[in-house]
This record gives sequence, structure tokens and C-alpha cells, in this order.
Amino acid sequence: MKSMNGPRNVAMMMDLYELTMANGYFLQEQSKRKVAFDVFYRRNPDGAGFAVFAGLEQILEYLENMHFSPEDVEYLRSLHLFDEQFLQYLADFRFHGDVYAFPEGTVMYPGEPVITVIADLVEAQMIETELLAQVNHQSLIATKANRIVRSAKGRAVSDFGARRAHNNDAAIYGARACYIGGVNGTATVAAGQDYGIPVGGTMAHSWVMFYQDELTAFRRFAEIYPNNCILLVDTYDVLDSGVPHAIQVFQEMREKGIHSSNYGIRLDSGDLAYLSRQARKMLDEAGFPNAKIVVSNSLDEFTIHSILHQGGCIDSFGVGERMITARSEPVFGAVYKLCAVEENGVMKPRIKISENIEKVTNPGLKKVYRLYNEEGHSIADLLAKPDEKPEDIDFLIDPIKPWKKLPTTGLYFKEIQKLFMREGERLYPTEDIQVVRDRLRAQLEHEVWQEEQRFENPHRHYLDMTRAYYDEKMKLLAGETI
Amino acid sequence: MKSMNGPRNVAMMMDLYELTMANGYFLQEQSKRKVAFDVFYRRNPDGAGFAVFAGLEQILEYLENMHFSPEDVEYLRSLHLFDEQFLQYLADFRFHGDVYAFPEGTVMYPGEPVITVIADLVEAQMIETELLAQVNHQSLIATKANRIVRSAKGRAVSDFGARRAHNNDAAIYGARACYIGGVNGTATVAAGQDYGIPVGGTMAHSWVMFYQDELTAFRRFAEIYPNNCILLVDTYDVLDSGVPHAIQVFQEMREKGIHSSNYGIRLDSGDLAYLSRQARKMLDEAGFPNAKIVVSNSLDEFTIHSILHQGGCIDSFGVGERMITARSEPVFGAVYKLCAVEENGVMKPRIKISENIEKVTNPGLKKVYRLYNEEGHSIADLLAKPDEKPEDIDFLIDPIKPWKKLPTTGLYFKEIQKLFMREGERLYPTEDIQVVRDRLRAQLEHEVWQEEQRFENPHRHYLDMTRAYYDEKMKLLAGETI
Repeated sequence: MKSMNGPRNVAMMMDLYELTMANGYFLQEQSKRKVAFDVFYRRNPDGAGFAVFAGLEQILEYLENMHFSPEDVEYLRSLHLFDEQFLQYLADFRFHGDVYAFPEGTVMYPGEPVITVIADLVEAQMIETELLAQVNHQSLIATKANRIVRSAKGRAVSDFGARRAHNNDAAIYGARACYIGGVNGTATVAAGQDYGIPVGGTMAHSWVMFYQDELTAFRRFAEIYPNNCILLVDTYDVLDSGVPHAIQVFQEMREKGIHSSNYGIRLDSGDLAYLSRQARKMLDEAGFPNAKIVVSNSLDEFTIHSILHQGGCIDSFGVGERMITARSEPVFGAVYKLCAVEENGVMKPRIKISENIEKVTNPGLKKVYRLYNEEGHSIADLLAKPDEKPEDIDFLIDPIKPWKKLPTTGLYFKEIQKLFMREGERLYPTEDIQVVRDRLRAQLEHEVWQEEQRFENPHRHYLDMTRAYYDEKMKLLAGETI
Repeated sequence: MKSMNGPRNVAMMMDLYELTMANGYFLQEQSKRKVAFDVFYRRNPDGAGFAVFAGLEQILEYLENMHFSPEDVEYLRSLHLFDEQFLQYLADFRFHGDVYAFPEGTVMYPGEPVITVIADLVEAQMIETELLAQVNHQSLIATKANRIVRSAKGRAVSDFGARRAHNNDAAIYGARACYIGGVNGTATVAAGQDYGIPVGGTMAHSWVMFYQDELTAFRRFAEIYPNNCILLVDTYDVLDSGVPHAIQVFQEMREKGIHSSNYGIRLDSGDLAYLSRQARKMLDEAGFPNAKIVVSNSLDEFTIHSILHQGGCIDSFGVGERMITARSEPVFGAVYKLCAVEENGVMKPRIKISENIEKVTNPGLKKVYRLYNEEGHSIADLLAKPDEKPEDIDFLIDPIKPWKKLPTTGLYFKEIQKLFMREGERLYPTEDIQVVRDRLRAQLEHEVWQEEQRFENPHRHYLDMTRAYYDEKMKLLAGETI
């Protein structure tokens, strides 16, 4: 049940240079050269120890549907930049490449290829912008939401951010990413409809203002939603008016024999730690220990941590602008870099050299393994040449400290990239978002060290290399051809 | 020429509570009560003196198209929250309200109603989320882009942000907002197609990496795009390789008699101030004083100011992630507050009282005037009661310092809100984006004090009130009914 009218074709959501370069390759008869591009990122947001991979589902949808309408081609023709044969080519364009990727919800680390595209040069070039926009946006929000969920220590977290999101897609795909990150639900109806995410919500100040009299407003709401009866208590005065009126309504419900399965109050301003403690006391003393306390108002992992540290009595957090925009660091910097070009039937590695060691790319086709110890903890990731077999890899090299070698004795190898699209065809149906969300949770519960998960000075996860892969990269850096 | 497939109906892009409240009003036979809601914001991002209003066009499109498909209604039915008659009502839903607003591209200040919706209660309630998302996103980006454009002191600025935007809409509507804010163009093709914004771009590192040999890569590009020949010179080494190779290609073009109208280099990493000065010197000495220098890499108003302060020789800035996400402050906090409710045929004011004086709302229907002195400078904005005539307003009251009164002698009154939609029908065709962009530029050139435009400690623009409006607000705050 899609909220939008039919599948969208976002083929034109690309930087112009993708098309000018594609036209150039086309004219030089290079367009059919097979190439490989890697998507990777360089730094975890917020100084974290890891990030969460998300956005793949929308990328696969995009690649399957990507085409240029006659209007699109006509617009491009009007720019007087493109060869007529290239425009004809666009009119018939379909993506025919292979896409390897991490499954969504996989924990990821800087420098490793989370997606690898192997395709004809022109096709691979033209998909760059949309691939990056999806990975960057959804991974940013999933990563941020997961931090917020972890800070809430098992209490419910809901996404209330649509009105402050960077437009519709940011609200809807953002709600999807929040859910992958572990929130319990969203207020955004379209996200509920599109992805089966549980939707929820309370009431606005306008409800209370409309009725003017707060008690009447609460009574009216309780009549209609006895089992979804979270009353917003901060329109006038929380402790003098809002909470007493809420208690009065809960008492009236009880007198009428209504036993609500979900009732309580919501605080949306003021000192949430203090007010929630006082409100809890008032609700308990009035005989409503089951009444829930929901709080909202510019929350993030830092304010939630602080509120809980102060003993805030909170059942549920409604988190808006700071989660849906990843306010503390709203940019996820994944890039899309050429790593190999076919020459005479062989995929030859390419490298981008930089003064800055972190900006040097990892060249060539490669396999990515996650290595586990006997307790199931993930202890490092590994780049290997495609033809290397795990059983032949005796030790790992840390490329930052190449003199350190870790023996692989007792380690279990798991290949993380999987082929999701072959020659433009998806190999699997859309994954249920619940599966994606559970995948992340399972990794954080069982595989990822707590020391990588903490917010302050987390451990760095190693991205190691095999001897063969490391040596090849060093040769390329030295200017040798492979 | 729309890039998306047909008009999108984003009716379901709303918070669930809009629907639960609407259902509640419907069941209590309040749904046809006429109400008024104001959209306003409380604080300029980045400590600025003003913000730029944008997003109205998409709001009007949304209100005109808003409807619920059978699938939408079916999804809502599945939630078991809504009355069947309300679901029937949604199946036939159309928006029939009136919308007053500032024209897009108008300079705006905290506290004033930039949009006022007068409609039946249920209709007015259900549009909240989308209205706020559009205003918040596009105003945020237009305001940020305008700061960046002003920091560039007349040099060209282009939007290169799509890949780091918060998904497709953020890239496309964001490019629109950047253009309203004053950028010269965008790299995002869909935004060029949808809004007629000039599109541009250079080349990616992958072009240089594909050819391996930098000189060959540059030559191939120059052959195809002699008049759009901006060569990316930082793939290997800017001053030792990139710029010398670019100069060699420019010389070859000249020898062939090709006189390019647009050629030069792009720097995308490193010390842009230093490298641009050195590159300028090399280009000038080689006889290419017309070769342009384009720079990019995490730019914003602060880095641009710093680069220019250091004497950077730059013709054009390509600005990506920090503009398209408004990285320094990625949340624009506009809210939608009930200000009046019809009682017996009269619109009675409503006020939201708060401990925090800035969170008290401005009640009732009102007119918003901008006041100009004889030189045409805007000296204050003014809230008046709807029936007050400018010629009868003798002085202004500053509600923060109500003992101060400013006589209106010699001031020119201009009403800023305009009726854009009457009973659900648009009254004007879509404005050309060039008109919107020019509107903003004219205000900043002629009307808005430089003291309000500066980045550090800008002057506060007064939002004054008439005596009658101020007195009514004070009565409401004191608990009197009007």
C-alpha cells in the first residue's frame, strides 16, 4: 500500500556532470567498458564507533525502474550539451549492472565497500548521485536513531519528526530509517502505510486551545480514545492544571468502569526531568501507577541520557527534529569511487591517491569479510582479493600499522557483501523491514563489542587486509601497474 | 516539464494525531467550525537578523491536489482508530479553506504570521504537518543559501549538494530554495527541469581515474566540451600535475584556434586559499587570465569568508553538503498555532499561554504591515486588528518594551500577507522562480538595513503592535474573554 501515486522515477535526480561525463564516454566509445565503483564512507558521525547501513531497498527500486521519459530527454536536448545519439541511448536506457551490497541494517565501518556496482561505464556513472543520496540519508538517520534508542535504555522511542524533516522524502524514508535504527514507531502516517511501521500519536495544543477549558478538552478526548488516551498537560500549567485535570479524567473513566489499556500524560515543554518526577508522584498517589508518562521537546541521545541520569520517570520518548535531521551532524559523507576498469577482459585496479592518507581509496575488486571469535564477537573486518580463500588466509595486516600481524587461528570468516542485483534484475524480493530491524538488533546484542558502542571514545574497529591485497595496494601507490 | 511522474499526492504525509484529532472533532460535530491557524517561527537560524520565506508554491499545489485514495482510506481503516463516517468523509475530502501568506522570497522575522489558514476545523487541522514541513525545509535552505551567497561578495555560487541532501525532495526542493536564496545555478538536473533553474557542473575524479593519465583525461574532456571546460585538477597533485596539465590543454586549444567562452580549473581539496592563489599565478603567467577558478569542498559562509579574507583567487564556489543540509543549524522551527475560533459567526481570539514569554502566541485574526521610512528602508513590522486602518494608527508599541511608543509620522504602510487561495481555489498562477528570487534580492538591496544583514550581532527587527491589538492581547493574557 504505497502512499505516493505509483512508483516514482527519480532518474533525473542526478548531478549534471554524471550526464556530461556519460555523454563524453559515449562519444569516445568507452561507454561499454566494464567498471567497478565502491560506495564507502570515511568517518562515523558524532565520533561514534560504527554506523548503520540503510537505503539499499530504495536503491534497488530505483535501479529497476530507472528510465528517461520523452519529456526528460526533451529537457536534456534543450540544454545543447548532448549528442543526439546519446539522447537516443537515454530514451532506451535501462540499468543492466550487478550490485553487491551489505544487507540493510548491517553494522558498517569506515573504508569498507558497503555497495559495489559492476556495470558498463556509462550506466555505472549515471547512478552515482541517487545511490549516494539514499545511502547518505538513510544511513545517517538510522545511525542517529540507533544512538537515541540506545540512550533510552529500553524505554520506548517514537519518531515525531515529520514537520521538521527536510521535506516529504526525508520524513517518510527518514521514518523508515528510524525504525531500522530501533525506534518503536512513528507518527508519520505515510511511513506506516508504506512500510508497515507501527504509527502512533497523542494530541496537539490546538485540541486543548480549541475547547479552551482544559478539563473539557481532556474529557472529550477520553470519550473518543479511551484506549489511546495520552493527554497533553502543558498547555497552561503542568503541575497546577494539566496533571490534576488528567487525574480527574482518569478517575471519571474508572468510575464509569473503563479500564484503559493505554492512558497517561505527555509533557512537551519545561524541565522534563523535574516535571516527570512530580507528575509520576501525583499519578501514583492518585492510584494510577499504570498511567504512562510520554515526553517530547528537542530530545536527542544527550538530553535523554541527562534526563534519565536525573531520575526522570519516563515511559516513552517522542523524538522529533534532532533525530529526523540528525541535528548534531546532519551530513553522512559516503562517496562513490571507481576501483576497477576492464582491460582486455580483466578488471584492473584503479586507485585515487591523495596527500591525505584517509582519502586514498582501496583499489580493485575485493571481498569483505567480518571476522568473529569463538564467542561470536566481531573482532575485525577484512579486505581480500577476490580469488583468496578464507582457509588460505593465515594472518591479517592492519594497514595503519602494517608491522602488526594478527593470526587468524580460531576466527570465523563471514562474507558481508551479497549479490542483490544481477544484470539489472533483483535477485530477492523486498525484505520485510522487521527483518532488517532485527538484523541490526541481533548484531548489537551479540556481535558488536560494548566498547565500540559507547558514545565516548569508542574502540576503533579494525579494517584489516590480507597480505596479497595489502601488497597490491602498496604497488599501486608506488606507481606500478598491475 | 516535471521530472516526477505526474503530480504527487502527499496527503498521507501527516502526523497520525492530525487524523485522530480530526476524527474527534468530526464525531463531536465540531468539524465545520471555522478556525484560523497562523504559521510563524520564533528564532532566526545561525543568530541571523532575518530569514527568507519559501515553500508556499508547494503548499498551494498540495492543498489543491490533496485527497485520499481508496488505498489510503483502507489503510486508515485497518488502524481501527477511526469512525466509519469519518473515513467516508476522507474518501471525498477536498480542502476548501482560505490561505493568506507572504509572497515567497519575502524577508521574514520571528513571531509574525507568514501564513494564515482560515478553514473548517477538520480541514485546517489535517494540513498542519505538510505545511510546516514545506515552510521549514525551504525557508531553512533559502535562508542558508542567501547567507552563503552574500559571503561570496558577488562571485558565483552553485548548489552541488544533491548527494548529501536528505533524499530526493531535499535535493530538488532544496535546489529550488537555494535558487530563491540567490545562488546562480544547481547541479541537480531534476531541479533544472522542474523550475527552469540554470544547471551546471564540471567533472568527477572518476573521469581522471578512468583515463589514468591526467593529461589524456583533460584532452578528452576539452575535445567534447570546449566551451564548458572546467578541469578537475586535484586527483593527483594540484600544483605539480593538475594545473600544469590543464595549462597544456588550454595551450593546445589555443593553438587549434579554439577560443573557449568558459574554461578553467576546479579545486576540490586542500588549502583552497593557498592553492587558488598559486593556480591563478600559474594561469596568468601562462597567458590565461580568463581561465576561471572554481572551488568546492565543505564550503559555507564561514569558510568562504575566510578564503576571501586570505586573498583566495576564486571566480565561483560549488557548495554542497553545508548548504543543502544547512549543516550549522539544520532545523527551522516554524509552528502552526490556533489563533481564532468562530463562535456565533464571530472569529474569537485564542491564545497559548506559556511560562516562557517567547512561546506566548499572538492571538486572533490580524493584519501584518511592513513599515518603511521615506528612504524606503523597512524599519519595523506591525500587527494590527483586521478592522484598523493604517491612516488611523498614530503610534506603534514594542511589546517587549511596551512603554516605548514610535510615532508613525512619515512612515509608509505595506500589508505583507496576501490572499493566495480562496475556498480551496488558487487565485494566481505559479510564480516564475525568477520573480521570487528577484523579490528577495530587491529587498536586500533596497529595504533591509545592512545592520540586520550582518552575520555578527545583527540588529533586531521590531515586530510592533497597535494599541488596540496590544490591549486585546494583554486582556487575553489576564484571562478575560473577548
